[in-house]
Amino acid sequence: MRFLVLHGPNLNLLGSREPDVYGSTSLAEIDEQLAKTAAEGGHTVDTFQSNHEGELIDKLQTGSSYDGVLINPGGFTHTSVALRDAVQAVDVPVVEVHLSNIYAREEFRQHSLISAACLGVVSGFGAQSYLLGLEALIAYKRKS
Amino acid sequence: MRFLVLHGPNLNLLGSREPDVYGSTSLAEIDEQLAKTAAEGGHTVDTFQSNHEGELIDKLQTGSSYDGVLINPGGFTHTSVALRDAVQAVDVPVVEVHLSNIYAREEFRQHSLISAACLGVVSGFGAQSYLLGLEALIAYKRKS
Amino acid sequence: MRFLVLHGPNLNLLGSREPDVYGSTSLAEIDEQLAKTAAEGGHTVDTFQSNHEGELIDKLQTGSSYDGVLINPGGFTHTSVALRDAVQAVDVPVVEVHLSNIYAREEFRQHSLISAACLGVVSGFGAQSYLLGLEALIAYKRKS
Amino acid sequence: MRFLVLHGPNLNLLGSREPDVYGSTSLAEIDEQLAKTAAEGGHTVDTFQSNHEGELIDKLQTGSSYDGVLINPGGFTHTSVALRDAVQAVDVPVVEVHLSNIYAREEFRQHSLISAACLGVVSGFGAQSYLLGLEALIAYKRKS
Amino acid sequence: MRFLVLHGPNLNLLGSREPDVYGSTSLAEIDEQLAKTAAEGGHTVDTFQSNHEGELIDKLQTGSSYDGVLINPGGFTHTSVALRDAVQAVDVPVVEVHLSNIYAREEFRQHSLISAACLGVVSGFGAQSYLLGLEALIAYKRKS
Amino acid sequence: MRFLVLHGPNLNLLGSREPDVYGSTSLAEIDEQLAKTAAEGGHTVDTFQSNHEGELIDKLQTGSSYDGVLINPGGFTHTSVALRDAVQAVDVPVVEVHLSNIYAREEFRQHSLISAACLGVVSGFGAQSYLLGLEALIAYKRKS
Amino acid sequence: MRFLVLHGPNLNLLGSREPDVYGSTSLAEIDEQLAKTAAEGGHTVDTFQSNHEGELIDKLQTGSSYDGVLINPGGFTHTSVALRDAVQAVDVPVVEVHLSNIYAREEFRQHSLISAACLGVVSGFGAQSYLLGLEALIAYKRKS
Amino acid sequence: MRFLVLHGPNLNLLGSREPDVYGSTSLAEIDEQLAKTAAEGGHTVDTFQSNHEGELIDKLQTGSSYDGVLINPGGFTHTSVALRDAVQAVDVPVVEVHLSNIYAREEFRQHSLISAACLGVVSGFGAQSYLLGLEALIAYKRKS
Amino acid sequence: MRFLVLHGPNLNLLGSREPDVYGSTSLAEIDEQLAKTAAEGGHTVDTFQSNHEGELIDKLQTGSSYDGVLINPGGFTHTSVALRDAVQAVDVPVVEVHLSNIYAREEFRQHSLISAACLGVVSGFGAQSYLLGLEALIAYKRKS
Amino acid sequence: MRFLVLHGPNLNLLGSREPDVYGSTSLAEIDEQLAKTAAEGGHTVDTFQSNHEGELIDKLQTGSSYDGVLINPGGFTHTSVALRDAVQAVDVPVVEVHLSNIYAREEFRQHSLISAACLGVVSGFGAQSYLLGLEALIAYKRKS
Amino acid sequence: MRFLVLHGPNLNLLGSREPDVYGSTSLAEIDEQLAKTAAEGGHTVDTFQSNHEGELIDKLQTGSSYDGVLINPGGFTHTSVALRDAVQAVDVPVVEVHLSNIYAREEFRQHSLISAACLGVVSGFGAQSYLLGLEALIAYKRKS
Amino acid sequence: MRFLVLHGPNLNLLGSREPDVYGSTSLAEIDEQLAKTAAEGGHTVDTFQSNHEGELIDKLQTGSSYDGVLINPGGFTHTSVALRDAVQAVDVPVVEVHLSNIYAREEFRQHSLISAACLGVVSGFGAQSYLLGLEALIAYKRKS
Repeated sequence: MRFLVLHGPNLNLLGSREPDVYGSTSLAEIDEQLAKTAAEGGHTVDTFQSNHEGELIDKLQTGSSYDGVLINPGGFTHTSVALRDAVQAVDVPVVEVHLSNIYAREEFRQHSLISAACLGVVSGFGAQSYLLGLEALIAYKRKS
Repeated sequence: MRFLVLHGPNLNLLGSREPDVYGSTSLAEIDEQLAKTAAEGGHTVDTFQSNHEGELIDKLQTGSSYDGVLINPGGFTHTSVALRDAVQAVDVPVVEVHLSNIYAREEFRQHSLISAACLGVVSGFGAQSYLLGLEALIAYKRKS
Repeated sequence: MRFLVLHGPNLNLLGSREPDVYGSTSLAEIDEQLAKTAAEGGHTVDTFQSNHEGELIDKLQTGSSYDGVLINPGGFTHTSVALRDAVQAVDVPVVEVHLSNIYAREEFRQHSLISAACLGVVSGFGAQSYLLGLEALIAYKRKS
Repeated sequence: MRFLVLHGPNLNLLGSREPDVYGSTSLAEIDEQLAKTAAEGGHTVDTFQSNHEGELIDKLQTGSSYDGVLINPGGFTHTSVALRDAVQAVDVPVVEVHLSNIYAREEFRQHSLISAACLGVVSGFGAQSYLLGLEALIAYKRKS
Repeated sequence: MRFLVLHGPNLNLLGSREPDVYGSTSLAEIDEQLAKTAAEGGHTVDTFQSNHEGELIDKLQTGSSYDGVLINPGGFTHTSVALRDAVQAVDVPVVEVHLSNIYAREEFRQHSLISAACLGVVSGFGAQSYLLGLEALIAYKRKS
Repeated sequence: MRFLVLHGPNLNLLGSREPDVYGSTSLAEIDEQLAKTAAEGGHTVDTFQSNHEGELIDKLQTGSSYDGVLINPGGFTHTSVALRDAVQAVDVPVVEVHLSNIYAREEFRQHSLISAACLGVVSGFGAQSYLLGLEALIAYKRKS
Repeated sequence: MRFLVLHGPNLNLLGSREPDVYGSTSLAEIDEQLAKTAAEGGHTVDTFQSNHEGELIDKLQTGSSYDGVLINPGGFTHTSVALRDAVQAVDVPVVEVHLSNIYAREEFRQHSLISAACLGVVSGFGAQSYLLGLEALIAYKRKS
Repeated sequence: MRFLVLHGPNLNLLGSREPDVYGSTSLAEIDEQLAKTAAEGGHTVDTFQSNHEGELIDKLQTGSSYDGVLINPGGFTHTSVALRDAVQAVDVPVVEVHLSNIYAREEFRQHSLISAACLGVVSGFGAQSYLLGLEALIAYKRKS
Repeated sequence: MRFLVLHGPNLNLLGSREPDVYGSTSLAEIDEQLAKTAAEGGHTVDTFQSNHEGELIDKLQTGSSYDGVLINPGGFTHTSVALRDAVQAVDVPVVEVHLSNIYAREEFRQHSLISAACLGVVSGFGAQSYLLGLEALIAYKRKS
Repeated sequence: MRFLVLHGPNLNLLGSREPDVYGSTSLAEIDEQLAKTAAEGGHTVDTFQSNHEGELIDKLQTGSSYDGVLINPGGFTHTSVALRDAVQAVDVPVVEVHLSNIYAREEFRQHSLISAACLGVVSGFGAQSYLLGLEALIAYKRKS
Repeated sequence: MRFLVLHGPNLNLLGSREPDVYGSTSLAEIDEQLAKTAAEGGHTVDTFQSNHEGELIDKLQTGSSYDGVLINPGGFTHTSVALRDAVQAVDVPVVEVHLSNIYAREEFRQHSLISAACLGVVSGFGAQSYLLGLEALIAYKRKS
Repeated sequence: MRFLVLHGPNLNLLGSREPDVYGSTSLAEIDEQLAKTAAEGGHTVDTFQSNHEGELIDKLQTGSSYDGVLINPGGFTHTSVALRDAVQAVDVPVVEVHLSNIYAREEFRQHSLISAACLGVVSGFGAQSYLLGLEALIAYKRKS
């Protein structure tokens, strides 16, 4: 199976940006872990990061040619109806992940516009959130 | 007269995306109908679609060289003050159109940040919304 | 095809009432334009104005014997659940129209209780709103 | 004992209007059942339906010459302070009934402006709501 | 000068209806006092009461042939945009009066949809509110 | 037919607790009346009171072995999603009853979390509310 | 009878301050008119202006030695619970007046913390509001 | 490592209760899967279900003798500050899981009072949510 | 005099649980201090802690046989209408106490559902809050 | 130890002002009781009342030369950020007291802007609230 | 040019009061810097601090005899309509300054009632905010 | 020192776009003034304008190689969490500036999502806002 992994705005700074909130693992390391985990099950992942909402939407629209999509929408989580619409337009399961526990942060970060269009949400486990999200996708696809 | 038609995010998927909500007409077909309707009155339309808010703003700023603008802001309808500012900055009439009846959908879709800066709004008639919007622009320009 | 056109409260004053908001066309002139436009397509329109919510509901209930209904609910737009229920009870398409762009006015005028029960909405084009609404009804009936 | 039964807007359409919400019993059948139930206890009922808020208020004001009033305010439930004032002005017990369970419907239908001025409320049992309401009135009058 | 006085729903019951809130003066007595006060200044008043919003709007629309209008909108104070629109449509000063001090009552009675369209408001002085309102109209007309 | 009747917290104090709000009938007397009314139709009722939300849920889960459930959730009406979930989990009709008219009391008592999961609601008729609720259940079961 | 008239903050600037909102009559002229009107009925008025909430409260507490108090709380209208408490502590009738129609201004000016503790309110008639308020006090005292 | 797994109210009905929302796996099967997964890593789990908030709190307080706690608070998710306090009082990591995607359900289900006191949240993957939550706990403990 | 002291959920953990918020005094020590203080005045106290809302209500209902009740409702402070109803049902004075200053904590902790049914509230003085509450009860009983 | 006691607006009227709400003890009597209680422990109190927010702030700023401050902010409780800032600026413990139970009164009285800056709050015990507050200060100082 | 500088409540404590929020510069030092900066351009400043809202209003009303006013309203920023009215009444430009970045503090500090009546706002630069505000005034006066 | 200046969407139209709101100075002129002012202190500025949120974020991420950043986020001020996150991720001081006084405009423009992550804000002085912001940055860097 092939999966698409999307990283939203400012995630390219991972490791150096507010490490007490987001951890000290870099995005490259997360992508590596995802690739390794996927490979163990015989799967592959394509990863993509952008600070541009439009590029994330463009990419997300290609999601239909994958078996599932993993997305950390970053700051767009709370503000982008367009991204939510793209999630809804894609006909494969989409899982939303967050490094930090967004429900324990500022009030405006506690509501996601994206979640209602996703299969499910994993939030608060640092880089591990991505691995759990991937695992959820694989398990879901196997069952259906 | 020349008119600019702007299609917002995810409208490139029209026809295949949630057809029970947005209908089965493709964006190309809508553009064709608009061109045909415009031609019947001796007018022309330039159409443009983008998933990038910035590109839509760039394009909208060229609107002053047209006789009017037709815009379906898609998901940006509910979240983009920047797009609204661009509508306000353009000195030709702008008409907002929606394929679905946004006032009959989820609560967050029922309020448009764009409408207050537009001449008027047409919502709920599928592809026909665009044609009615174009007609509204033409009639308005003729009167003024 | 036969269509019913309903004008809500205070629309009998059109032309003299706040002309900067509602335009200087009288209701009789609008009715005439509607009749003329309908006749061009071989259709007829019955028009009715009342300041009484009850009379509008009574009339709207007769809507089932028409091919569609055009309604400008005036001040009842924002306050009448009973009118909305009548729209919902009628089994023909109902289109809501407004002379002014209600989304650009006082906050209490920006929400319509009626819209969610209608096929679609046309708002902000003066008398032209009615003609576009009629056209929307005709196009809709032709397609279905 | 004599009771007044008031049916609000659009209830004249009962049986044909959205039968999955309001049931397939007609208003005439409900009135008949009420008359029959009342007669069994040696009582009489006067029934009245109107789509006009003013007529319902006029009629409600005659309520003082009855032993109690049963009212299904329909769409006025959520919007009419004037009707509430009339309930408060009448010096006999008033019971509010609803065919559907209004607390399980759209948010704007879940709050009644009328209830606080009534003896009690019966909601959700179809035509049976009226019979239970009548019974409540009779039991209340017997006790007091 | 000629003035129009409009009494809203349930005010016909004045004197008997909740006398601790609305006082024990009947509507006829208020009308008499208004006529007498007007006559002392050489003016006349036409008074009109209705429980029908539509009739109040119809009457209010005739207000342009008077020198001013005095209105106690009763329960419509808090719910009628249509009445407010009629006040706005009339080109003579309109004064809103209330028997009780509405700002000291239930929360939903503390906001008037009508006030913003009126010259001013007098609230809380029982029947005297009407006389003060009439005086305000006369003084205003003399000055302008 | 067999019915389960559940009484929520503090209802064991009925008769002595705030009698001006809840009446002077004791819970035992209500249970007796319910048993008698049920017996008249050849039915039986099992009644249960608890101040423990968990015990009410445990009991409610046994509801599937009855023909219907009558519940007065007391203070849990406004705060218990768990009780609502139990109502939704049970596959027999559940009717909610209240002694007082909750819609005429403090604002936090006017909204029930339970109602939307019930067949219907009876509120405000004192002990009679229970009898009407039982009758509603019996009538509903007969019809279906 | 003796009356106390209190003018709140910035009212000392009357006549020069935003004359399109507050009129061109000075505070001295208003005080003169009040004195004259009072004298015609054989009454006297003591007037007092302050920009200090504390001084207004101090003065208001002396109100019990008058037959009534007239107060224009100015900007304190919307923010002073302490002033409201002082109105409530005084055992003579207090009438609130405003030069402008506060219900037609910015949203934060449309709610008065003072009104609920007053006999009544007169708002929107310029200097005339004071005279009507005084008249209301005199009429009220005569009746009681 | 030893883990405590807590199941909140109505989860004992899993498999038969609204299977389209909660899936058809029974609670016993979930517990079995958890035990198996734990055993594969050489860990053990203690599982506990209750409809009683108090029993869940009692049990949760024993959590300090475990290496971590997995909790599906069911209906208490949205209403129990006491449960949140217990989570906060326990000095081991607590992970919140939900079978359904609570962010895609009724508005009152979209906010969790518990999440802010947890390490993280897994929601929407059916029985798989538990397994992912357990995995998250194990990974977290290994890292720290 | 005899007093009942009720400790709500998680208070059994006092001393070890978040000592920077709740202090390092254990519940046993508080109970001892209360007993000692009571004894000095010749009074006795019965103390009771539970994590079960139902048990607290059961116990509170026995309050009528005491001279007063002291309650720290813990997490139930903000969520339990049932507990509030029990306070209202008991015919002796009830005083609410909190160890921490709840008005200086998270927003959801700043509002108590219980306070309005109590004689008064003492909050923020650690274990001392209980002693002051007891003293308040004794003083109140002496005076009445 | 020396303590400063501040009484806010309208508290000078204590004893005569709304005695059913605030009790019949005069402010002088409260001051006397405070002095006596303080003296018993070998302490002294300075008391100060003002209707002027500015004077209370001036005085409060001298609080740093005392061992603690007791304040009943009266009507300023709900509206004065400036007073709150002064409490925060003073480096001794400040205790807030209220004669009435503010949490059982009008909604706007249930929130205090001052509390979050204080050590704790005592509310609802009449004059006794002051004595308990003083005792709380003394106990707190002894412990720290 | 002459400028008036107003310092609101508690600013007299600058330097010692919460230095981590407001900095360690004293008010005298700020006044000195302002005088020096003004003198460099050949201007003078009059500075005034008060904890009394009324005195600030009195002083602000003298603002018309200056070329501009600089105001740090302190705690009155969020609560004083009277001060805002005084700003609006003065016919010279008024600039609002804050030492701390009020938009990054508690929610109730993030909204200023004063700003909408000012020329502009400078917030967050400590003592420098005053100097920038003065510079803004000077630049504005030069241009106009 | 080197500074980065970012101009948000539609600011490229400055001078021609709504000049009564935004002034008639063009963006090039502002950039020139900034460069000149910077040069006077021996500093340099790099300026960048974009209508694309993503490009602004990309650029802002380079901010760490500057001594400070000046940003006018335009319409993104009120809607972009992603931009705020970028401000937070950059480890140099960021100052937010606005040409117009945003606190005196439409309600949705009065709240900035960006401000809380900035050092401070300058709003309302036209092109001068930029110069004051630059000066604030320089002064801040000098001091730290």
